[in-house]
Amino acid sequence: LSGSARGHRVPTSRDVARLAGVSQATVSRVLNGNDRVSEETAQRVHEALRSTGYTPNLAAATLRTRRTGTLGLVIERITNPFYPELIESLGRELARRDLRLALWNTSIAAGDRAATQAIYSRGIDGLIFTAATAQSNALRLAIEREAPVVLVNRSVPDLACDQVECDNEAAGAEMARYFAHHGHAVVGLIGGPQGASTARGRVKGFTETASALGLKLEVVDGGAEFSHDWGYTAFESLFDRAETKPTALFCGNDLTAFGAMDAARDRGLDIPKDLWVAGFDGIAMSAWPSYDLTTARLPLDQMIEAAVDLLLSRVADSTRPATHLRFSSELVIRGSTAHAALPPPA
Amino acid sequence: LSGSARGHRVPTSRDVARLAGVSQATVSRVLNGNDRVSEETAQRVHEALRSTGYTPNLAAATLRTRRTGTLGLVIERITNPFYPELIESLGRELARRDLRLALWNTSIAAGDRAATQAIYSRGIDGLIFTAATAQSNALRLAIEREAPVVLVNRSVPDLACDQVECDNEAAGAEMARYFAHHGHAVVGLIGGPQGASTARGRVKGFTETASALGLKLEVVDGGAEFSHDWGYTAFESLFDRAETKPTALFCGNDLTAFGAMDAARDRGLDIPKDLWVAGFDGIAMSAWPSYDLTTARLPLDQMIEAAVDLLLSRVADSTRPATHLRFSSELVIRGSTAHAALPPPA
Repeated sequence: LSGSARGHRVPTSRDVARLAGVSQATVSRVLNGNDRVSEETAQRVHEALRSTGYTPNLAAATLRTRRTGTLGLVIERITNPFYPELIESLGRELARRDLRLALWNTSIAAGDRAATQAIYSRGIDGLIFTAATAQSNALRLAIEREAPVVLVNRSVPDLACDQVECDNEAAGAEMARYFAHHGHAVVGLIGGPQGASTARGRVKGFTETASALGLKLEVVDGGAEFSHDWGYTAFESLFDRAETKPTALFCGNDLTAFGAMDAARDRGLDIPKDLWVAGFDGIAMSAWPSYDLTTARLPLDQMIEAAVDLLLSRVADSTRPATHLRFSSELVIRGSTAHAALPPPA
Repeated sequence: LSGSARGHRVPTSRDVARLAGVSQATVSRVLNGNDRVSEETAQRVHEALRSTGYTPNLAAATLRTRRTGTLGLVIERITNPFYPELIESLGRELARRDLRLALWNTSIAAGDRAATQAIYSRGIDGLIFTAATAQSNALRLAIEREAPVVLVNRSVPDLACDQVECDNEAAGAEMARYFAHHGHAVVGLIGGPQGASTARGRVKGFTETASALGLKLEVVDGGAEFSHDWGYTAFESLFDRAETKPTALFCGNDLTAFGAMDAARDRGLDIPKDLWVAGFDGIAMSAWPSYDLTTARLPLDQMIEAAVDLLLSRVADSTRPATHLRFSSELVIRGSTAHAALPPPA
């Protein structure tokens, strides 16, 4: 009976560590899927976990520490390939820090609902918003509740909230200078959703600089979301109504540019002979030979690392003043603009 | 003081419901981001949440009910656009049922580690594996621990585990018959990762049927993962070594087919005049004009709905015998095979 009583004592992570001949920290690393444990050690820990029957209890740990080790990510539309790349980058960053990722997709639970759900969730320590607009109720709610939040690749001016973005305006301006430098006198612009600070910044930088340089400008702005469909239809309406056809086209993001290129080719245009096209984001697909797209690449890994730093420091100190970081993009020249060189710095 | 004492009573969801003039179930729906609540009602509930200061406590609820309302998803590589589409479909299905999604990406926490972490996590009620192989330690571990698990778009024969897949073998066989029916005597195949049951099934169905029909067959199999790069390099090695060049090519998935098409065009081949190409999955990109790819489309939404049904019933009853569901794909004919009609049913 005493044997049976011993047998039923609830095993602890200390039992597991002793049996595997490792430290409790190592047991915890294996349970968290941390890569820094050798395959052989992990194997020993797994065997010890099995033979002791030890089970970590996350719910109890959460009540005790008030931390879950999980960060939430609110994204707009995962089928825009920019977001999978962002998730991949974030996943690597979190794995490096033994943290986990929970995902909310605003394209599913419509609009703000998903973000609201994330804010009320107690399963996460903090939230990364990539889909916020100034009009976002969820964002206002998060600020009100003092939920640890960081905006990534979105900015809302005058909001007391950590923000990490790319200098979209400067990137748009650089693209206009690039087109002008190579003699394009009529240029086109396909913008993006009004609510997205990224689209607004790129449009502002491009149109202001194009005007200042005396270029004739054809613009189609808006769209419900950045998408291939939007790029395709926007291209058609732009070229249908333009009296003088643009010879160079800047698109609000790469996905939109793919749609515009497909539409241009369906009209028999040759890229880059008849039309230059450039995008924004620098997603992997932009390098595929079918598109070979010139694009402004944002420093995604650096932005993500900075955002996670900010969020964790916010979790630790809710009173720290808000920080607003702005990174520069890099113009990647490819075949869609005939591999034409960058102009000398302004 | 009594006013102050009243003011400090911990508010409950009942207080919120009363103040908003709705049921507690409605409050819970709003907190879960459920779409079935009208915008106006949600607004009232949010105001009541703010004025009462009520905070749902997920950790306590988890200890009480042993349910977290979160399902975990283990995926292989989120930058393969098939997975974002799967996540989108799963997200819709979970939102419909007031459930949440946590994500583990095996391409980040290398190999089995991510899945192992998911299994030990107490933050989830059950797990959807989309990256399991027969050799997967994580999968064996999950079965040993009687963790509620369902395999989606992967199968492991003789495993006592709920599984939902597509009939990959039948799809491969249909593709071989389609090519043969239109007079292709030499056909090519670009397979996929050896560990993936999807790739193995498609390869088996295609090669066996092609042989039975007397077609000459050129095969490149393997690859670390389904990717554009793999399709591109596999195409090059297949066409370099083939004595008689294939006139029709079946690729293990759509992403691989895009890579193969880009490689073929870089060699000056015209698709479909010189070469037919077909893929598998039916992702949205396959319809883009640059590829316009004939593909076997799997019924993703149906598969996901079935998988969630199985998983929830497994959470409720761990002793139910394992179920293995197999869905049929549908051949979607497009320009990459010259819009040539399907043969009559065998």
